[in-house]
Amino acid sequence: MLLVQKYGGSSVANAERIFNVAGRIAESYDKGNDMVVILSAQGDTTDDLVAKAAEINPNASKREMDMLLSTGEQQSVALMAMALNKLGYRAISLNAMQVGIDTTSAYSNAKIKTISRGRIEQELERKNIVIITGFQGVNKFEDITTLGRGGSDTSAVAIAAALGADLCEIYTDVAGVYTADPRVVKDARKLDEISYTEMTELASLGAKVLHTRSVEVAQKYNVKLVVRSSLTKEEGTVVKGDCNVEKMLVSGVASDKDIARISIEGISDEPGKAFEVFSLLDKNNVSVDIIIQSIGRDRTNDISFTVSKDELNHVMKALEENKETIGAKQISFDDSMAKVSIVGAGMATHPGVASLMFEALYDADVNIAMISTSEIKISVLINEKDVDNALIAIHDKFNLATQSLRKS
Amino acid sequence: MLLVQKYGGSSVANAERIFNVAGRIAESYDKGNDMVVILSAQGDTTDDLVAKAAEINPNASKREMDMLLSTGEQQSVALMAMALNKLGYRAISLNAMQVGIDTTSAYSNAKIKTISRGRIEQELERKNIVIITGFQGVNKFEDITTLGRGGSDTSAVAIAAALGADLCEIYTDVAGVYTADPRVVKDARKLDEISYTEMTELASLGAKVLHTRSVEVAQKYNVKLVVRSSLTKEEGTVVKGDCNVEKMLVSGVASDKDIARISIEGISDEPGKAFEVFSLLDKNNVSVDIIIQSIGRDRTNDISFTVSKDELNHVMKALEENKETIGAKQISFDDSMAKVSIVGAGMATHPGVASLMFEALYDADVNIAMISTSEIKISVLINEKDVDNALIAIHDKFNLATQSLRKS
Repeated sequence: MLLVQKYGGSSVANAERIFNVAGRIAESYDKGNDMVVILSAQGDTTDDLVAKAAEINPNASKREMDMLLSTGEQQSVALMAMALNKLGYRAISLNAMQVGIDTTSAYSNAKIKTISRGRIEQELERKNIVIITGFQGVNKFEDITTLGRGGSDTSAVAIAAALGADLCEIYTDVAGVYTADPRVVKDARKLDEISYTEMTELASLGAKVLHTRSVEVAQKYNVKLVVRSSLTKEEGTVVKGDCNVEKMLVSGVASDKDIARISIEGISDEPGKAFEVFSLLDKNNVSVDIIIQSIGRDRTNDISFTVSKDELNHVMKALEENKETIGAKQISFDDSMAKVSIVGAGMATHPGVASLMFEALYDADVNIAMISTSEIKISVLINEKDVDNALIAIHDKFNLATQSLRKS
Repeated sequence: MLLVQKYGGSSVANAERIFNVAGRIAESYDKGNDMVVILSAQGDTTDDLVAKAAEINPNASKREMDMLLSTGEQQSVALMAMALNKLGYRAISLNAMQVGIDTTSAYSNAKIKTISRGRIEQELERKNIVIITGFQGVNKFEDITTLGRGGSDTSAVAIAAALGADLCEIYTDVAGVYTADPRVVKDARKLDEISYTEMTELASLGAKVLHTRSVEVAQKYNVKLVVRSSLTKEEGTVVKGDCNVEKMLVSGVASDKDIARISIEGISDEPGKAFEVFSLLDKNNVSVDIIIQSIGRDRTNDISFTVSKDELNHVMKALEENKETIGAKQISFDDSMAKVSIVGAGMATHPGVASLMFEALYDADVNIAMISTSEIKISVLINEKDVDNALIAIHDKFNLATQSLRKS
């Protein structure tokens, strides 16, 4: 069968780990599979390159950042091909230009539009193991783009979709998808299966095991995903369309510390003011998460919203420059926030779920700053320092460790 | 005017040096020049990547080596564009795929075939300073190739030729072309001018100031070259067609320690045997330098030739595998050799030059292992440890420090 595998940066951090991964790839190849492998940059390579750029220009253009960062993956794939050759296997590395991974123009946050099958299939016909750079693509200007944080997962799923692969295995440093972060919640339980929809929410809420976009793409093209560890032989978690095995109200709890809250106070209460704020953010290519508008004093409104921490300076600058146009009295931010969320397919029809979550937080003495809900998730914004306590309290309150359905 | 500048790896080794170079580029841009800049990889980047590859696979394929090494230049150009942006200048970085630098297929030693002007000219029209990766190209398989040691010089000259640039400035860590390596020969003198032909010989004989191919390309397309320091404002050395200023017999002395000698002993004295040896080397894409065939014992021949040290393992392997076909009794090597050469346009017509050189070596107590001569150069192979003494002795014997014409 045609197998797509993706290995993250920690799995290829040094020569020893590269050979560990090469061994796994070779094992799958020896079973007669056609193999396409997507890699991230080695270990801290991306962080090191970001630091190097920051030393030169803290406001470096995203185009040049992508040009710089994309070299990390190119190094990984070349080294992996060398390792496989060393083990006696035919292998070839390809970057995004060589494969033909076309993306939108948005540097540092591009979306994959199309993937050419030609070169990959040609190399597979030659019995090569094909090693492809994750995280990157090429836009219509023939410039290199990157797909944003964790984008290699999306590369893998999109390539699997384009090739019609039988399975896409995402290898990581944990054994699968857990009901909570096992490093924080000791009795967190690994799920055997999870649906695309729940996985999307869990991922977007900070469960770092899979990149949100990758699950969306998997769902759209019905790519069968498995999340598993590159260090053990343990079975992972299958992510797919129908999941009847886990009939739980809440399938997991996730946290995201990469949250900054921005508050715009004293906006005059006229139509179109909120639109002005968010069209400005859109123009600056900023993804906004939770938004809350509340009524302030003297016929003015306050708007609060969250962005990722690395967007904070950028957003504050854009807002300050347009303070007049927006008509805001004051713009402030808080970068010590975190988001804790619960996800579950059955949640919407069980109003008691929210109150149970809030009870858990109250028991754990955790203040809630903002609340946001959807069909299958409830998120709260709390102080960063309270995250671990909150996770443990919620995981416990919903009995996630024992798989039993909590009556609400 | 249209100015092409090339800066080597040591000129962009860290943030401070990158800004130094950015300042120089900006200065030329402010004078109203259209600027195209070619960069090498930062400092030890290439060596570090080579070491990384060697740890994984000492016999890594050249294709994968090129894929790996080409990332070094891509990092430099992105960082330089960021630095120029920081100084308030418009700049854009481009790699070989984006420019369209087409090369032959020979990985790690490719030759540039054509360069597309489209993207570069488009960026120049937008008033961008265009920063291009040196050392690399793309072959007909859409694979990344590299141009071999010092290939960035060739990239710069070829791009200058393709664009019809008014001048190509090669910035390096020395002030120009010297009569000998100034680090070894204390009274070595900087030349104001040198002809393409002499420069080609000097470069190919180990004067590291310019890559041989780059001078050949400059001569072919009549590109005016200047070699100068990136650290001072000093005038450099002009390399051009006609040079009447320096009427010296010998214009310089150069050494190359990257030499290994291979000896094939006891080849049967039949026609075609030498052809067999060198067609084998050609098939393995090995550049051979000095070749000497001598008559051995029992109607057999000995063939000795030199290759660069990094080719040694590769060549020995190919030879050992074909020992039977070649019909050789023994194949041996010596990797402690070095080549010392003198270059001068008037040399061929002055037979005394060679004997003067040998006298200098005799005075300095240096043994000569092999000799090779051409129209404008004489090379000797000596022991690596004797190189500095040989250089000083020859430089002195030909009075190169005082610019006077030595009577032979």
